[in-house]
Amino acid sequence: MKFKFSIIACLFSLIAFSQADHSHRLERSLKFPDIPGYKSMKCDLHQHTVFSDGKVWPDIRVQESLMDGLDAISLTEHLEYQPHKDDIPHPDRNRSYEIALKEAKDHDLIIIRGSEITRKMPPGHNNAVFIQDANKLLISDSVDVFREAKKQNAFTFWNHPNWVSQRKDGIATLTDMHRMLIREKLLDGIEVANAETYSDEALQIALDNNLTMMGTSDIHGLIDWDHHVPYGHRPITIVFAKEKTAEAIHDGLNNRRTVVVHNNLLIGRDEYLKPLVEACLQIDTAYYAGKNDVLSVEIENKSSCEFTLLNRGVFTFHEDADLITIKAGEKKKITVKTLKRVSTADLKFEVINAINAPSKHPVITFKVKL
Amino acid sequence: MKFKFSIIACLFSLIAFSQADHSHRLERSLKFPDIPGYKSMKCDLHQHTVFSDGKVWPDIRVQESLMDGLDAISLTEHLEYQPHKDDIPHPDRNRSYEIALKEAKDHDLIIIRGSEITRKMPPGHNNAVFIQDANKLLISDSVDVFREAKKQNAFTFWNHPNWVSQRKDGIATLTDMHRMLIREKLLDGIEVANAETYSDEALQIALDNNLTMMGTSDIHGLIDWDHHVPYGHRPITIVFAKEKTAEAIHDGLNNRRTVVVHNNLLIGRDEYLKPLVEACLQIDTAYYAGKNDVLSVEIENKSSCEFTLLNRGVFTFHEDADLITIKAGEKKKITVKTLKRVSTADLKFEVINAINAPSKHPVITFKVKL
Amino acid sequence: MKFKFSIIACLFSLIAFSQADHSHRLERSLKFPDIPGYKSMKCDLHQHTVFSDGKVWPDIRVQESLMDGLDAISLTEHLEYQPHKDDIPHPDRNRSYEIALKEAKDHDLIIIRGSEITRKMPPGHNNAVFIQDANKLLISDSVDVFREAKKQNAFTFWNHPNWVSQRKDGIATLTDMHRMLIREKLLDGIEVANAETYSDEALQIALDNNLTMMGTSDIHGLIDWDHHVPYGHRPITIVFAKEKTAEAIHDGLNNRRTVVVHNNLLIGRDEYLKPLVEACLQIDTAYYAGKNDVLSVEIENKSSCEFTLLNRGVFTFHEDADLITIKAGEKKKITVKTLKRVSTADLKFEVINAINAPSKHPVITFKVKL
Amino acid sequence: MKFKFSIIACLFSLIAFSQADHSHRLERSLKFPDIPGYKSMKCDLHQHTVFSDGKVWPDIRVQESLMDGLDAISLTEHLEYQPHKDDIPHPDRNRSYEIALKEAKDHDLIIIRGSEITRKMPPGHNNAVFIQDANKLLISDSVDVFREAKKQNAFTFWNHPNWVSQRKDGIATLTDMHRMLIREKLLDGIEVANAETYSDEALQIALDNNLTMMGTSDIHGLIDWDHHVPYGHRPITIVFAKEKTAEAIHDGLNNRRTVVVHNNLLIGRDEYLKPLVEACLQIDTAYYAGKNDVLSVEIENKSSCEFTLLNRGVFTFHEDADLITIKAGEKKKITVKTLKRVSTADLKFEVINAINAPSKHPVITFKVKL
Repeated sequence: MKFKFSIIACLFSLIAFSQADHSHRLERSLKFPDIPGYKSMKCDLHQHTVFSDGKVWPDIRVQESLMDGLDAISLTEHLEYQPHKDDIPHPDRNRSYEIALKEAKDHDLIIIRGSEITRKMPPGHNNAVFIQDANKLLISDSVDVFREAKKQNAFTFWNHPNWVSQRKDGIATLTDMHRMLIREKLLDGIEVANAETYSDEALQIALDNNLTMMGTSDIHGLIDWDHHVPYGHRPITIVFAKEKTAEAIHDGLNNRRTVVVHNNLLIGRDEYLKPLVEACLQIDTAYYAGKNDVLSVEIENKSSCEFTLLNRGVFTFHEDADLITIKAGEKKKITVKTLKRVSTADLKFEVINAINAPSKHPVITFKVKL
Repeated sequence: MKFKFSIIACLFSLIAFSQADHSHRLERSLKFPDIPGYKSMKCDLHQHTVFSDGKVWPDIRVQESLMDGLDAISLTEHLEYQPHKDDIPHPDRNRSYEIALKEAKDHDLIIIRGSEITRKMPPGHNNAVFIQDANKLLISDSVDVFREAKKQNAFTFWNHPNWVSQRKDGIATLTDMHRMLIREKLLDGIEVANAETYSDEALQIALDNNLTMMGTSDIHGLIDWDHHVPYGHRPITIVFAKEKTAEAIHDGLNNRRTVVVHNNLLIGRDEYLKPLVEACLQIDTAYYAGKNDVLSVEIENKSSCEFTLLNRGVFTFHEDADLITIKAGEKKKITVKTLKRVSTADLKFEVINAINAPSKHPVITFKVKL
Repeated sequence: MKFKFSIIACLFSLIAFSQADHSHRLERSLKFPDIPGYKSMKCDLHQHTVFSDGKVWPDIRVQESLMDGLDAISLTEHLEYQPHKDDIPHPDRNRSYEIALKEAKDHDLIIIRGSEITRKMPPGHNNAVFIQDANKLLISDSVDVFREAKKQNAFTFWNHPNWVSQRKDGIATLTDMHRMLIREKLLDGIEVANAETYSDEALQIALDNNLTMMGTSDIHGLIDWDHHVPYGHRPITIVFAKEKTAEAIHDGLNNRRTVVVHNNLLIGRDEYLKPLVEACLQIDTAYYAGKNDVLSVEIENKSSCEFTLLNRGVFTFHEDADLITIKAGEKKKITVKTLKRVSTADLKFEVINAINAPSKHPVITFKVKL
Repeated sequence: MKFKFSIIACLFSLIAFSQADHSHRLERSLKFPDIPGYKSMKCDLHQHTVFSDGKVWPDIRVQESLMDGLDAISLTEHLEYQPHKDDIPHPDRNRSYEIALKEAKDHDLIIIRGSEITRKMPPGHNNAVFIQDANKLLISDSVDVFREAKKQNAFTFWNHPNWVSQRKDGIATLTDMHRMLIREKLLDGIEVANAETYSDEALQIALDNNLTMMGTSDIHGLIDWDHHVPYGHRPITIVFAKEKTAEAIHDGLNNRRTVVVHNNLLIGRDEYLKPLVEACLQIDTAYYAGKNDVLSVEIENKSSCEFTLLNRGVFTFHEDADLITIKAGEKKKITVKTLKRVSTADLKFEVINAINAPSKHPVITFKVKL
């Protein structure tokens, strides 16, 4: 096929290749670009330390989060479950928060006060974050505790509704009590990703009931071990906030402006999911090389997720069928058969690693200009 | 979420993880299991050496192929294009084959005699393999040369019908001459993958005209460089043959029994594509862990391709949405919410990295038994 | 040079190469073989948890140690320094031990009761391990506390004598009090490696005063972070014990039978250092290849340390000058010019990554038999 | 040991660590800095192609060399050994050179005309480079051919004097003919490294007879395969030249200004070896951290070799014994116990991976200034 061999092209592609595609150093710090109008705040609002049933001092949580490049965390100790109580009898349920706050004082990491309300089903486990005083949540009635949380202006969410210890089929299902909590605006969100798990049913509940979609590590041991860092990472909630402040994040959560990141999966409403995908995948350059009519488009993945795309546009590709994967940080060249030389071209993809409803993927369009 | 922490489970998963998922050594030798009734012969039937416009002595082609774990190759020198003729004036167009044969004599690699018939469009470049004497193909008439090839009992295929030097939009399109060649049974196959390129249009032509789908490296330089070994690999044609002999491979090609492998993409007719996918992805174990109703299914990818699957079954998963990727050689655990404990379960997937027609993916079903 | 090219040899060497030398998966679990007469017990007898100034619950220390493949550990909380006392006021200084014991109960990891006696200089910080009751060591007099430890049959050692917070030049130096403690057999050992530090002067003190050489992590945070696992590892003390029991390890320590491992450095007395090196480096095969008189000797490094050897024998090598390095787990081929074909050959090496005194390296001899 | 935990320091060191020490991307292009007064020209002056008994077209040699970052190469075909002569009967022994010249025309790679004079012992195989016409070297007398080479102003060197096919003990030994050739200034250099071999005896011959030390790949197959790129690399001769021209390299060779690089080993005369080592290892920064008297010195290895150093200075180190290794491209921090705060300090090292005579290593001194 190749009558003319261009060593320059060959070397160039080898260099480009080695820098972009393969054997690239895995970076631990999570990267997700901002979207128009909002900052993308990387949050993990469900974590444990020795102050409930976790295995580390709060300092380690702060250090893990700094290494992971997070913007905000909450140490949400179980209010009612205190297995280390014999050793740590401290009556103040805000201790974990205070220690973390001190550890983080020289860093740009927001510590949000929170607690886990730990009950049998219903209502199961729920987090209240942005509270004023954890101690006041030590209330036995399972509804009154939500009222107190709301009195403190908390943002609340249902934890791991798919938890097999509370429902052995793992199918997240609303109970009457949850419906009441939602109706009375006592429950704002629901975890669609918790630790290593994800729940399609929880996602559907979020959509049907206008709840904020949440993803959290619910970490008890070490992030590095449970999430195979740097090959994997913890689940996070990206909150779209007007600025990097606790208040703005709170506002984002209250207004359902989130995308959950679970491994390489992005979960969210199209309103925020599509701008995020578009911010992650940026066209670097587009050009016709040589004398033919095949357009080279270089797309840079500016995120920490691998993207899996299916071609839904009118053009076919010169080097790929309909499936395109772009690794975290990779610059990928796609060669598009535009039939003739054009000055603009629309590339349309279904984003398979993103989900706006169970088994539903957003479609994005790159408008390539030459 | 985790009231009980099992260090045994933790350690076990860490070990399993480190052996299966991540940072695994990339093996160069290509692996594709046999399918029921046939051996999966890994072939690259379009290669060049210094005996036409390639850059290496035939020995290197044999050594590359052994490292890649191939079963059969053909060195298909251009009959009419001999840029090294001043230095290599040898009149015998079988030399490349003979040297390779000698180099391979102590190895289990089949060397197939072949040539590239090198013309302007139409009919462009075409390969004739399983020929008896390359010299007799030095015939100026572009149809007579096919007749001679067929007289020698050759298998013939159209090379890189998407080649931008012969059609600058890269769109493979049948000409009247090609239609005639097909009609008169002078042309048997068509390359759907050549070097770094793939063609949806060529695939459609293969389907519409009952041609054998071919994938070849068309290598001129070094396989290692052009295909970024060990991160990538050359395109190959898997021929389904009754046994590992040249004759059986010839029979497989004549009867359209091929699947083309291009990077992680598998291209073929469902008749062979589905058995191959089913042979690549094997259920290792399936069990209910703990007291819940979530079924763990471990699938081993016995191939050198990464698989990309979309859930099309009735169950949702406990750790994934609908997208599942399984790396080459990986053992992947999928956790299936079977609602209650069952003794059999069907897992149904659309195989996104396989294609049986442009933008059409086969669907496979794993029948899990406990 | 190569008139005959053997592809078999080439492929064979490529396979050998890929399995042995390069890009090999780094294993976390530390490997050091037993020596004649003794088991090589991998111990880290100086660690902290939240029960003094560490940052993790004792469970994490057990899990880290299991992953590192250790045989015995001691959680040696500061008796006198209790910065978390407001949160963890537990009066029993044995708590850390007890929690670890429970966590380790289903594993083959020996938990040794110990404490850190934490004083200004002299005598600085010292560990007492194999004690009966940590609480009884809460004695203000700096000598009496040693007497109590000894009454409990403790093994004692001076921690980080090179600590810049207690001696800003970092030069370990005996004080009169240390001399007295040694003379009265109240002090048994000295750390030559602590955390990321190593001390030539401490090694000299050990030699001059017949103290047990110790290496410990003195971990406060996470082993994975401080020691860059899996690229690095924590310092350990290999104790040569008659069997894998706490008593046998105690006996080994009392009798100075240790080698300290600090990164790739092995520190010990020749009596134990040389057998350990000889156990780590095993001759796999030795043969004359081809018709020449160059002997191929394959040496397997069965340890987790990279070895650095200098040729001190009578033969020169065919592929190396005097420096030979053998990576952890590597099988290395050395080609020896034996002048004529011999049936036995002595290979003599100075082991540069081992030290039996400051700047003194042991010399070992491989007796190769054909 | 650590009463105060600084997370900033911890994170900083983690970042520094990840960028410098471990899991760093291996770069193929060989790096060796210039030395005062000279450019460090990376040369491989002994290579083969299909024009003698090599396995590739000259273009591949040019491409390999460009990828390896070489400055100059010579394709030194055997004059008398032409196994491909039936296929490549071209009578002009300069063809290989001419083809390479054309391939390299747009690159900054110097192609030097050369040939291998291929005889039985004595004088064995010898290269003549910087010749005017290879054809004129087809002279049967083994001395006359050297005279002709010298008439053409060639630089000549004895190839693989350790070759087991010509001397089965592999011991390089001068013959009377070699002595005569040296005496009559017909032989200028000697290979101390050839392909995968190195010879202490050849080094001694170079020193005793004032010959230029040479290191070459003598490549017949592929550099990538024989030298396990990117984990290893081919042997090269660094020639110290006044400028990057063929003439300046010729002058450097004539004046014995070379250092041979064989794996991580540097072989040369101290006059050039020491400046090269000093250029490779550069002190980046030196500072006292904290309040103690331990000096941190950061040394950057600007070369493609791993350095192995033994401390020969007056100070001991705070984190290492006497052995220091610095990987290719690594920035290594050494902590030096200077006893008190000083404004200058001499660090003295024996460079174990460099050799100026058999088993003799140069000693270099870093003059640290604060």
